[in-house]
Amino acid sequence: MATRSLEILIDEFNRLPGIGKKSAIRLAFHILEMSNTEVERFSKALKDAKETVKKCSVCGNFSEEDICGICSDEFREKNIICVVEDSRDIIPLEKTNRYKGMYHVLNGKIDPLNGITPDKLNLKPLLEKVAKEEIKEIILALNPDLEGETTALYLTRLLKPFHVKITKIASGIPMGGNIEFADIATISRALEGRQEI
Amino acid sequence: MATRSLEILIDEFNRLPGIGKKSAIRLAFHILEMSNTEVERFSKALKDAKETVKKCSVCGNFSEEDICGICSDEFREKNIICVVEDSRDIIPLEKTNRYKGMYHVLNGKIDPLNGITPDKLNLKPLLEKVAKEEIKEIILALNPDLEGETTALYLTRLLKPFHVKITKIASGIPMGGNIEFADIATISRALEGRQEI
Repeated sequence: MATRSLEILIDEFNRLPGIGKKSAIRLAFHILEMSNTEVERFSKALKDAKETVKKCSVCGNFSEEDICGICSDEFREKNIICVVEDSRDIIPLEKTNRYKGMYHVLNGKIDPLNGITPDKLNLKPLLEKVAKEEIKEIILALNPDLEGETTALYLTRLLKPFHVKITKIASGIPMGGNIEFADIATISRALEGRQEI
Repeated sequence: MATRSLEILIDEFNRLPGIGKKSAIRLAFHILEMSNTEVERFSKALKDAKETVKKCSVCGNFSEEDICGICSDEFREKNIICVVEDSRDIIPLEKTNRYKGMYHVLNGKIDPLNGITPDKLNLKPLLEKVAKEEIKEIILALNPDLEGETTALYLTRLLKPFHVKITKIASGIPMGGNIEFADIATISRALEGRQEI
């Protein structure tokens, strides 16, 4: 009963991550209620973003320029590199306003079950940088899950020969979180990572 | 740190109903990871749906033709009309395979606080149909909330003079639901609507 072009649009929304069939239907119907100008603008935004956004040739972050805003910012500390799985992770890290170093985007994490072996990751530019430049510290800001931990371990071994300081962001009870409802792994990690006050 | 065209795309996603800032970011980044062909196809699906989908001149349902598939289906019962708030509501009703009559889409419900007065609703074609044709029953399939109930009451008064049978779909504990956790209004309604077995 939905028309053909509406069904196609529902399918397109349904393909996006986290958008189930019901949400896809809701979104597609919303599109039909939008003005022509609004739909045109959305449609254009999709193509524009895809066409203009490339990856920074230094760190792998998304950028409209060959070198991203962070890499080309002369006020940032060049000798600290924060390694993230994904460009997306840079946004919340930057929001803290606590970090003024550089980034390196791995474009994934080691996950052999899903075919992601170390050679699929953006590792070479990081190793080259560590070999060539005077890097003081590498902060691993990987997600605290099985694949993130595996990747952290792999990177640590890979970077050890360069005698660079390697740190890992803390894992524990989230701010505003509740010990009562936290899972055992998180509580264990919070205990292990306890700090003197 | 997100690039300009990426920010625009995030904003566009954020404008959609039920898509918060975080989901919008996730979706926009997903678009960047999609192939050019996929983005092109999505972008086109938006415009195509908006351009080709009109409203059925009889019932107000979305349709690519002047008259929708349901209204032009000669095997459906022409003398029963199911009144819905929104085209979207037709999909689940049709899925039941229990209803073979016609539909009428109001395009909203009476909600004076949000400026939706009865004159904003698609009422005229319904009244004309009831006046001209031999209609046996009008089923009100409106959402059981304050605005839906108000609209049902308004429609009942409006249709009374035509001496047509007006019914309302049942409201009560949902299938698989739990009386213990149901709200009082739902339980009250379930009691009122009790049927002999």
